[in-house]
Amino acid sequence: MAGYDLAVRGGQVATGFGTTRCDIGVKDGRIVAIAERITDAARAIEADGLLVLPGGVDSHCHIEEPQPGGGANEETFATASAAAFAGGTTSVVCFIPQWKGHGVWERYVDYRARAARGMLDHSFHQIISDPTDAVMEQEVPRVVAEGVRSLKVFLTYEPLHLDDAQYLRVLTKARELGCLVTVHCENYAAINWRTAELLKHGMAAPKYHAWARPPVVEREATHRAIALAELVDQPIQVFHVSCAEAAEEIARAQARGVKVWGETCPQYVTLTAADIDRPGFEGAKFMCSPAPRTREEHARIWEMIRRGTLDVISSDHCAFSYEGDRGKRQNGADAVFRDIPNGIPGFAARLPIIFSEGVSKGRISLDDFVRLTSTNPARLMGLAPRKGMIAVGADADLALWDPAKKVTLTNALMQHAVDYTPYEGMEVTGWPVATIRRGEVVMRDGKVQAEPGTGRFLPRGPYDLIRPRGITPDGFDPAPPPAVR
Amino acid sequence: MAGYDLAVRGGQVATGFGTTRCDIGVKDGRIVAIAERITDAARAIEADGLLVLPGGVDSHCHIEEPQPGGGANEETFATASAAAFAGGTTSVVCFIPQWKGHGVWERYVDYRARAARGMLDHSFHQIISDPTDAVMEQEVPRVVAEGVRSLKVFLTYEPLHLDDAQYLRVLTKARELGCLVTVHCENYAAINWRTAELLKHGMAAPKYHAWARPPVVEREATHRAIALAELVDQPIQVFHVSCAEAAEEIARAQARGVKVWGETCPQYVTLTAADIDRPGFEGAKFMCSPAPRTREEHARIWEMIRRGTLDVISSDHCAFSYEGDRGKRQNGADAVFRDIPNGIPGFAARLPIIFSEGVSKGRISLDDFVRLTSTNPARLMGLAPRKGMIAVGADADLALWDPAKKVTLTNALMQHAVDYTPYEGMEVTGWPVATIRRGEVVMRDGKVQAEPGTGRFLPRGPYDLIRPRGITPDGFDPAPPPAVR
Amino acid sequence: MAGYDLAVRGGQVATGFGTTRCDIGVKDGRIVAIAERITDAARAIEADGLLVLPGGVDSHCHIEEPQPGGGANEETFATASAAAFAGGTTSVVCFIPQWKGHGVWERYVDYRARAARGMLDHSFHQIISDPTDAVMEQEVPRVVAEGVRSLKVFLTYEPLHLDDAQYLRVLTKARELGCLVTVHCENYAAINWRTAELLKHGMAAPKYHAWARPPVVEREATHRAIALAELVDQPIQVFHVSCAEAAEEIARAQARGVKVWGETCPQYVTLTAADIDRPGFEGAKFMCSPAPRTREEHARIWEMIRRGTLDVISSDHCAFSYEGDRGKRQNGADAVFRDIPNGIPGFAARLPIIFSEGVSKGRISLDDFVRLTSTNPARLMGLAPRKGMIAVGADADLALWDPAKKVTLTNALMQHAVDYTPYEGMEVTGWPVATIRRGEVVMRDGKVQAEPGTGRFLPRGPYDLIRPRGITPDGFDPAPPPAVR
Amino acid sequence: MAGYDLAVRGGQVATGFGTTRCDIGVKDGRIVAIAERITDAARAIEADGLLVLPGGVDSHCHIEEPQPGGGANEETFATASAAAFAGGTTSVVCFIPQWKGHGVWERYVDYRARAARGMLDHSFHQIISDPTDAVMEQEVPRVVAEGVRSLKVFLTYEPLHLDDAQYLRVLTKARELGCLVTVHCENYAAINWRTAELLKHGMAAPKYHAWARPPVVEREATHRAIALAELVDQPIQVFHVSCAEAAEEIARAQARGVKVWGETCPQYVTLTAADIDRPGFEGAKFMCSPAPRTREEHARIWEMIRRGTLDVISSDHCAFSYEGDRGKRQNGADAVFRDIPNGIPGFAARLPIIFSEGVSKGRISLDDFVRLTSTNPARLMGLAPRKGMIAVGADADLALWDPAKKVTLTNALMQHAVDYTPYEGMEVTGWPVATIRRGEVVMRDGKVQAEPGTGRFLPRGPYDLIRPRGITPDGFDPAPPPAVR
Repeated sequence: MAGYDLAVRGGQVATGFGTTRCDIGVKDGRIVAIAERITDAARAIEADGLLVLPGGVDSHCHIEEPQPGGGANEETFATASAAAFAGGTTSVVCFIPQWKGHGVWERYVDYRARAARGMLDHSFHQIISDPTDAVMEQEVPRVVAEGVRSLKVFLTYEPLHLDDAQYLRVLTKARELGCLVTVHCENYAAINWRTAELLKHGMAAPKYHAWARPPVVEREATHRAIALAELVDQPIQVFHVSCAEAAEEIARAQARGVKVWGETCPQYVTLTAADIDRPGFEGAKFMCSPAPRTREEHARIWEMIRRGTLDVISSDHCAFSYEGDRGKRQNGADAVFRDIPNGIPGFAARLPIIFSEGVSKGRISLDDFVRLTSTNPARLMGLAPRKGMIAVGADADLALWDPAKKVTLTNALMQHAVDYTPYEGMEVTGWPVATIRRGEVVMRDGKVQAEPGTGRFLPRGPYDLIRPRGITPDGFDPAPPPAVR
Repeated sequence: MAGYDLAVRGGQVATGFGTTRCDIGVKDGRIVAIAERITDAARAIEADGLLVLPGGVDSHCHIEEPQPGGGANEETFATASAAAFAGGTTSVVCFIPQWKGHGVWERYVDYRARAARGMLDHSFHQIISDPTDAVMEQEVPRVVAEGVRSLKVFLTYEPLHLDDAQYLRVLTKARELGCLVTVHCENYAAINWRTAELLKHGMAAPKYHAWARPPVVEREATHRAIALAELVDQPIQVFHVSCAEAAEEIARAQARGVKVWGETCPQYVTLTAADIDRPGFEGAKFMCSPAPRTREEHARIWEMIRRGTLDVISSDHCAFSYEGDRGKRQNGADAVFRDIPNGIPGFAARLPIIFSEGVSKGRISLDDFVRLTSTNPARLMGLAPRKGMIAVGADADLALWDPAKKVTLTNALMQHAVDYTPYEGMEVTGWPVATIRRGEVVMRDGKVQAEPGTGRFLPRGPYDLIRPRGITPDGFDPAPPPAVR
Repeated sequence: MAGYDLAVRGGQVATGFGTTRCDIGVKDGRIVAIAERITDAARAIEADGLLVLPGGVDSHCHIEEPQPGGGANEETFATASAAAFAGGTTSVVCFIPQWKGHGVWERYVDYRARAARGMLDHSFHQIISDPTDAVMEQEVPRVVAEGVRSLKVFLTYEPLHLDDAQYLRVLTKARELGCLVTVHCENYAAINWRTAELLKHGMAAPKYHAWARPPVVEREATHRAIALAELVDQPIQVFHVSCAEAAEEIARAQARGVKVWGETCPQYVTLTAADIDRPGFEGAKFMCSPAPRTREEHARIWEMIRRGTLDVISSDHCAFSYEGDRGKRQNGADAVFRDIPNGIPGFAARLPIIFSEGVSKGRISLDDFVRLTSTNPARLMGLAPRKGMIAVGADADLALWDPAKKVTLTNALMQHAVDYTPYEGMEVTGWPVATIRRGEVVMRDGKVQAEPGTGRFLPRGPYDLIRPRGITPDGFDPAPPPAVR
Repeated sequence: MAGYDLAVRGGQVATGFGTTRCDIGVKDGRIVAIAERITDAARAIEADGLLVLPGGVDSHCHIEEPQPGGGANEETFATASAAAFAGGTTSVVCFIPQWKGHGVWERYVDYRARAARGMLDHSFHQIISDPTDAVMEQEVPRVVAEGVRSLKVFLTYEPLHLDDAQYLRVLTKARELGCLVTVHCENYAAINWRTAELLKHGMAAPKYHAWARPPVVEREATHRAIALAELVDQPIQVFHVSCAEAAEEIARAQARGVKVWGETCPQYVTLTAADIDRPGFEGAKFMCSPAPRTREEHARIWEMIRRGTLDVISSDHCAFSYEGDRGKRQNGADAVFRDIPNGIPGFAARLPIIFSEGVSKGRISLDDFVRLTSTNPARLMGLAPRKGMIAVGADADLALWDPAKKVTLTNALMQHAVDYTPYEGMEVTGWPVATIRRGEVVMRDGKVQAEPGTGRFLPRGPYDLIRPRGITPDGFDPAPPPAVR
């Protein structure tokens, strides 16, 4: 054996399945050897004292989503790539929108082109907001054939939300095509009702965003999303679980063998509804959906992470600046909560926050961290073993991590396109000092150095977790769900 | 004290709270004394060897519901009264329909007139199938002011079903007016989806009625109905629970303090999906919704009755003849299951079946029986203490019951308007030998002897179980739910 | 009908199954009529504006228990009777001790004689602390034949506790004889271990009493007591449940059909571990076992009461004065917590506290109150329908209750033998203004006026709840448990 | 890097965290490289078409346990090693007995010498059956200091069982020393009671072994073992869980953060109580404790395995011949079930059965298999990363597995010392074709070729899962339990 392009040497290699001090040999962008000592490499990075982790996989993030009338949100693939690399993330799964009344193929083509200008390896969830015959029977199969193996649906939001019949149609087609369905679970009508009641009483400030969508609204939609998927026998992932009562629905379903997985995000273990009540319009910076809850809920979410009910932590990066005409204040500083753009940035903050709040504070193990933020999302999305793993044959995507480094988060460190971070001033212990993407050092000491246009599209074939099984007349399939771990 | 109109003497008086051998003195149709011995009555009925029970209260039944184009279902208030009296039932709560695109006041007036021609004391649930502004803001308050204190909604059925926004509107108005909301819980879209899938595969026989609506469809709607009621803090009763997984949702909600009650029916502890698969078109006789399940499910339903999760047993009498142009075969003997009228008769069979399967077979106590079939429905509907109780001041509605009498059920014994009973040939132990309504013997040894036009409307005022409490901004009300027992 | 000895007129009669304004006619100490109006009585008590409740039944209290060397605790049957009447209670079930190494017959005879000197109607639980062959095979059957239908065991306390083999022996014999078994559930070895650990660290003050017996110790013994009873198929009542985790074990067992009932006491919804930490030695006044918990636990206990898991509220009256050589300080004011007599007085306070904290504060209904404190204990102990009910044929035991009266509790009001009440200074709304025992007014406006020696022994025959069923080889009996309500 | 002693080439390497086609390079008995291609090795084994798994770790087995009067059970370390290698297992944790009235040090010394004569790498659990001061304070610390990091206790069996006080003493000392405690959970007194009842009724045949210990007996002891461990905050592993109700206790405890793990064995997913009822005395071959249950229970155990509640599958190998004076019939073919030696052989059958019933039949994934039978036991026992893993630095213990090979199990294939296997005639799919221990091929095509005396003792230091934390006065430690996966 000889002739590695790169060796990463002397680090503590954390695979999500134990940690070993060893070297990693890379050739043609892939890991080809893991060994006690690798000497014959063209280039070596010494990683003594550092953790060597698989690069982060962020399976839920919004980048440069084009709008019906032209334009897109502020984060481009270039800025998103910088932000991701800054935080140790090397791959993403982001969203191709569907505009009401339009198809999806054109969006797919456009979006592929946009993504190709960035530096991140990327795959997509295809959003379905208008499951017409033409879309479902002709365009979606075409997009899936290109390697887009997940369909995203919203059970709330105007104009995106699907009703039950539409959701069932998506589930059925996903089963036929062998796709995962990812679901935003909040009850559309209930939020509208609460919003109307609140506004009727003059309760319009940002903080009422949280009042408009209490946990019961999330629990209801979670149970419904699961029940209908159970009927169809179609695997789903519940996105951004914010509270234990919704997570408990997932746990109950898993215990009866339903193919459902749960995701949460850093905001649901750090931010609270009180943040949305900060003075002035400041609270708008913390508005996302589901709304952040309480400190007590954070503890319960950690518990659900430890129990394995929630096994992916993504960013749900969805960035709006605070200022500016595409920002939180675009409708004025007196805007009714309903009219404030909804979402927060989180690319670069994801791994440091979860490492610090999780591993450094003793809530989860290093193995848990690697799995929650890299291996599990890669597996659930069908990107493993190419992504999310340090194993022979995998892409050489690595984050070199200083577990002891203390950093105070600032917006500058985030390297994203927007003008604030909701985590401003938070202190974390543990920080990525280098990011390697397919054997290339794309970030070192905070300096991103990748060329635009080097990101690759990651086509996904059918994979085990979403494999459709024979349908039975009564719709029940006794086969157990595969585990992601 | 002296001068009773009637004394019922020497029976074992079962109040639902113990059984005592004593006499009951009646004056002006009401119970005015319960005593060891009553001698000075104008008329005495000797009840030695019999149980004296409060007359049955059937809080869920369909009688003579008028149709948009004229006509009504086969059961008239006269025939329904005979059937009810034959089975020991003295009061009912039945339904005022709302036709899509129409109001409710006209129906109410019409229906009052129809009901006045029968012999049963009666109250109504107002069905809401089209909650427009005019209906909800003007007509419903007027109907409620007349004493109709419950609104019924369907979460499935074309054209009755409400979507979540409409259901929330009904809940909100019910809360404001002080009404109970009763709910048919099955998921509309899911049943449609399953039906389409089945028909696509040529599965059209009656038995596929059950395949089209598996338990998960009922569990989903039950959880959703509860969750939205929880959000609004509005009491609801879940109708005709057929399976443990739906009942479990009610139990969980009760344990967290939600004001929800559960009802079941005799068919869900006696009939099975196999009955709908009887040869020829025979299975149509057993079609109702939710569909009957399995023997194992019967045992679980009894368990849920014993735990108190299901605390009312009604008939859901909804009668169609087998033959005839208003019957099960109206669309031919090859009709697709979707096109077969849905519902079964059950007025007279309710009490004997539950007594026999419950008390005689040792599954429940005599106290349980009285509460499940009389006291609890009366209380939950706000008819107590006037109805559903043997207590000083209550109406003298009594069923004299021979606990040892063995009877084989036949359609003739049912005394209803339709041409079959799904319980044909079932043997029961325990039978009503006389029925007394407001002190008048209206049935004796199977012979009904009441005058048409003697039934009374039972206006209901606001009552404790549905009392609206102060609404809080976040919609949660810490007050515990009142118990019906 | 004519010639009542007594009529109670015009009150709101609360039977535990509804409340009616009516009169009660009494003859020879029994209720013989309940009617709208009773006029021909030798004596009438006007109860306008008052509630008329069945007299309280306290099924768990310690009175005048004789000690091996002679002597007994401070409360005699005479003082206990006064205290009970003062608080609206008319019947008790107290304990016949068994001394290690001794039989039970002699104690029974002695105790019958002692009890006969009081004014309370009474029955007994026979404590078994030494289940030898002679005791179990010869003496216990004799005591049971006298009408003592419950055996009490302690799973903790030196020298009373039984090990599993002894407990199984008691369960088996109880099943054979048709008795209930009542159980003190705390783990003996675990408390000893914790106590030793605490004392090793110098933690000896009264407050460490609570530290020595955390909830897990109670939950463990509760689960074990139930599991072994489940194996034997023998009904048990778990005494004085203090925390939700123990109650949850009862709820789980009930849901799987085990014949287990749960009791709690006023101290577990009012006192806390902080009370045992009052300055000086004062905390000793609040020491009982299980130890009082927290305010949060009180809320959970109320929830378990509302769910019906805990369906009896007794006093567990076990009184020691604070001062004196039989009191809390008998081992000095520096006594190690282990050496402080354990128990608190509660006879007279039981009903007012539960009425006030429960009914007046809206946590439970008036029906619930009557059942929890009178009907349910009477039924579970086989004293109904003679006791615990307002029904024709029942003993005329009544409490006339002013629901609006506000009273500040003091030791003088308690009328017991000891020198303090742990509820000193607590304000309650609702108070008994008269107590009637078998038609005789034994307390009026706080003045007890019964003659010593008028209390009657209440022999209990076999009754439904404890009826032994056919044993099967594998010990499981599918029959459902009867409900007490 | 160059000069490997051995290369295993071309296999599908299954690490328990994914499967990759790659080569493994071994030097000095350890894995030093995992790479796409390894060419420069002194010796190569071609593994094309085979799975390469970490060698099995059997953390619960009985070998050559010496008896008080001299002698030991039939399985010696030599025969056990052959059996283990035949089945793909390379490491074991077996038991050092303690004889009542004796210490443990002498046994440890003796046992080390015995084990040294075998070929298996081995560690020990120290059984504690008599926790005297001398044993617990002087000898146990000495044994632990030698690297024995787990103490085993029995809650049943004469004369081994500990009472609660003794168990608490073991837990407390284990916590102080940093040991795991492993527990046999069945209720001693309950089994004795049932046994006596059965024998009283003449029920003495082998099959009554199962009747004597129904699931409730196991559930009780499991809950108690957990509760006391929870009180002490000491990690435990519950051995050989046979039924869902016991497993559910573990799941509940895990959900509240208790450090408890659950193990099961092949017999609990293959054998049933009906096997113990085979004609003649044949049933004795299937007697072990807990007793095998039913087919339905097998399905529930698989479910608990999939949920992660049960995360280790060991053999509980405890072998007695059917014939012979140390065998099942040693007390005659009419022996009362209580007097029949209790235990079954299972070394070689463990991996093939779990692979076949689990992986081949689609109940679990290959990752699950590796973790359940190798990685998890190694981790839980503190043997990882040296054992149970294919990772750089680990011992080169490997099983080369033919996943398609069909084999009918016979006693000859088992290669153990006893004269039967309970799995005789069972067909399995998947079989170990070679076993490698520290780089040496110790079994090839069924032929075991290791030298006696080559097995190594595996001393275990303190490790994360059992790390004692600061004790708090109330015994609760908020730190979450570490996960084994």
